Amino acid sequence: MSVTAAKGFTAAGIAAGIKENGNPDLALVVNNGPRRAAAGVFTSNRVKAAPVLWSEQVLKSGQVSAVVLNSGGANACTGPKGFQDAHATAEKVAEVLGRGAVEVAVCSTGLIGLLLPMDKLLPGVETAAAQLSEHGGEKAAIAIKTTDTVHKTSVVTKDGWTVGGMAKGAGMLAPGLATMLVVLTTDAGLENDVLDEALRAATRTTFDRVDSDGCMSTNDTVLLLASGASGVTPDHAEFAEAVRQVCDDLGQQLIRDAEGASKDIKIEVINAATEDDAVEVGRSIARNNLLKCALHGEDPNWGRVLSAIGTTRAAFEPDRLNVAINGVWVCKNGGVGEDRDKVDMRYREVHIVADLAAGSETATIWTNDLTADYVHENSAYSS
Amino acid sequence: MSVTAAKGFTAAGIAAGIKENGNPDLALVVNNGPRRAAAGVFTSNRVKAAPVLWSEQVLKSGQVSAVVLNSGGANACTGPKGFQDAHATAEKVAEVLGRGAVEVAVCSTGLIGLLLPMDKLLPGVETAAAQLSEHGGEKAAIAIKTTDTVHKTSVVTKDGWTVGGMAKGAGMLAPGLATMLVVLTTDAGLENDVLDEALRAATRTTFDRVDSDGCMSTNDTVLLLASGASGVTPDHAEFAEAVRQVCDDLGQQLIRDAEGASKDIKIEVINAATEDDAVEVGRSIARNNLLKCALHGEDPNWGRVLSAIGTTRAAFEPDRLNVAINGVWVCKNGGVGEDRDKVDMRYREVHIVADLAAGSETATIWTNDLTADYVHENSAYSS
Repeated sequence: MSVTAAKGFTAAGIAAGIKENGNPDLALVVNNGPRRAAAGVFTSNRVKAAPVLWSEQVLKSGQVSAVVLNSGGANACTGPKGFQDAHATAEKVAEVLGRGAVEVAVCSTGLIGLLLPMDKLLPGVETAAAQLSEHGGEKAAIAIKTTDTVHKTSVVTKDGWTVGGMAKGAGMLAPGLATMLVVLTTDAGLENDVLDEALRAATRTTFDRVDSDGCMSTNDTVLLLASGASGVTPDHAEFAEAVRQVCDDLGQQLIRDAEGASKDIKIEVINAATEDDAVEVGRSIARNNLLKCALHGEDPNWGRVLSAIGTTRAAFEPDRLNVAINGVWVCKNGGVGEDRDKVDMRYREVHIVADLAAGSETATIWTNDLTADYVHENSAYSS
Repeated sequence: MSVTAAKGFTAAGIAAGIKENGNPDLALVVNNGPRRAAAGVFTSNRVKAAPVLWSEQVLKSGQVSAVVLNSGGANACTGPKGFQDAHATAEKVAEVLGRGAVEVAVCSTGLIGLLLPMDKLLPGVETAAAQLSEHGGEKAAIAIKTTDTVHKTSVVTKDGWTVGGMAKGAGMLAPGLATMLVVLTTDAGLENDVLDEALRAATRTTFDRVDSDGCMSTNDTVLLLASGASGVTPDHAEFAEAVRQVCDDLGQQLIRDAEGASKDIKIEVINAATEDDAVEVGRSIARNNLLKCALHGEDPNWGRVLSAIGTTRAAFEPDRLNVAINGVWVCKNGGVGEDRDKVDMRYREVHIVADLAAGSETATIWTNDLTADYVHENSAYSS
C-alpha cells in the first residue's frame, strides 16, 4: 500500500528510460488534499545534491503538493546545470498537475557527477502523471530502487487515520541519514510544526541509527506529507509514535537489504553516562572494519569490540567493561568472560551488548558485516 | 641492520614457542650505553594492553636498558594477571642482563584476550639473551612479525651518528598509531627531552597519518633508545629530521604490506584553512569504504571523494572543491572536470589530491584499498 495507504494520495511508477536497462526509474506521489502540510529531513552531508538544495527550498514554502523521484542518476556534483534540471523537473510536474513548482519536491538517486537525461525525464513525468492512481504506491516504491533487491513499504493504521511510506536504500547507510529516499504520507489533519516534530524525533532514533558502512550520501531525503483527508486530528504523541513505527520498520528493511551483507548486527550500548556516549560508542563499534570482518567469519571477537570502545571519548573505565555476543558475556570487567565457544553465530542476526558500567542511558545502532560481496558490489562497477 | 645499526646496541630474535607454528616470536633489544636515554609514544586507544601500561611506567623512570618484544599474543584485555605477566617478563630480562626491571620496556602483539604462555616466554628470554649480537637487528625484526609478509627495517646514517629501526604491522593501521610495534635506536648523545620532541614530531606526520583501515590497536608502541656510543651530539633539528626519515620509511613499508591490499593510496589535501582541517579531510577520505572499494576496482570515483569531504567540519565551499586522481583533475569547482577516462589506474600507487580552496595548509594521509582479500584475512581466522 505504501504511500497511497493514507487517503488523499495518488502515486505512479514508470520506466522513463533514465536507466539503460529499461527498469522503472521515475515515481510521482501527489497529495490531493484537502491539506498539503509537510515536513522534511535532509542529508547532513555538506556536499548536497541539486534535488536536495531544491527540496529544502520547497519545504520552506510551507506546503508540498507532490514529490517526483528518479533512480538512475543522483544529480549530485552537477553544478548550476544540475540545479536547473531539478528546477525544470519540478516545473514540469507543476505544469501537468496545475500547481506551483515551489510546491513540488524532487529526489534523485544513482551515480554522482552525471547530468540527468532530461529528454527522457520530462516526458516521463507526463507518462507518470497519466497513470496516477490510489493504488499506485507499490509501483512508486519499485521505481525508486537502485541496487535494492526488494522494494520497501510500511503502513500503520490507527483509529480512522493512517501513516504509510516507501523507502529505497541498500548499503551506503549511515548516520545523518542513510543513503536513502523515504516518502511518508498520512491522512491525519496536522500542521507542519507537528509533522516536523514527529519526523525529527522518529528519524533520530531510527534511520539515524542505521549505520551500514559509515558512508553518508549527498542525496538523503525523508519527506512526510499530510493530506488531512481522514478528517481526524490524532493525539500528537500517538501520531509521533505511528511515524516512529513506520520509520523503524523501513529502517530494518534497509539493513536487511544492505549490499553484500550476510549478517544484520544489532549493537545495544547500555549503562552509558549519557545517550550521546551510547550513540558514539555504538557507532564506533558499528564502523570497525576488523570487527565487521570477524562477525562475517562468525568469530565472536570481543577484543575488537573493546578496541573500538577505546577509541571513543565516552565515560567508562576499561576494567569495568562487559560485552555480550548473542547472549553470552564473553567479556567481563575488561577481560575474558564466559567461554566464547558458547556463542552461537549461525544466524543472520547478531546481537552485541556493550555495557559501559557508567550510568543508565542506552542506544541501539544497527549495522552489517563486511563481506567480499560488499567489496565486489562496490568495486566491480560505478555506483 | 635495523636496531643494531647504531653503536651501543645488541639484539636477538628467536622462536620461544609462543606461536604454535614454530616461527620466531621473541625479540630482545639491549642498549649497552654509555647512555640509556629514551622516549616513547603509545596507542591513544583508551583500552591499553598490559605491556603498554607497563612500558608507560618504564618510560617515566627516565632510562631504558632493554626492550623485549613478543609476537603470538597481545596480552590485551587480560586483567591483573596480564599485567603481572608483563611485569614478570621485564623482571626476567632484568635478571639476565643485570639491570633493573624498571628499565625494561615490554611490547606484545597478537590476539587480544589470551594470556601469554609464560612457561615458554620466560625460558625464551634466556635463549634470546644468550644470542645477543651487534648483528642481531635483522633477526629481531623477523621475530616481531605477525601477518606481515616481510620484516621492516630502516637506517639513516649522518656524520658519525646513526638512527635505525624496525617495525611490525600489516593492516589495522590507524591514527593514534597504526597497530604496530616500532623500536628505533641511535648512538647520538642526546637527552630524553630532545629524543621525546623528535619522536613526537616524527610520529605526528608519519605513523599517525598512515590510516589503512581506521582501526586503532590496544598495543601500539614506538620507542626511541639512545646509547650515546657515537660520542657525537648532533644538531637537534638535524637529528629530528633523521628520526622523521626513518619513521616515514617504516610507515611506507607498513602501508605497502597492509593485509590484502592491492593499492597504496596517497591522499594529499591542499589549500586547507588549517592543518587540522587538512588532516580531518584526509582521514575522512581514507576511511570511506565505498571509495576504497571503487579504487580497488580501478574506478576513479571522485563523487565518493566529495561525499567524504562533505561529512567533515573543515572550512570549504562545495562549489569550489577540486579533486585530481593520478594527475587528472576529474572534479573542478565541485562538478565534473576533465574526462575520467584519462585517469590511468593500472599501477599500485594511487594519488588523490583534494583541493579545498580555503587556505594554504596541507597534509598527506596514506591508506589502502578495500579488497575481498582483506575481508578474507580478517574473517577466516581470529587475529
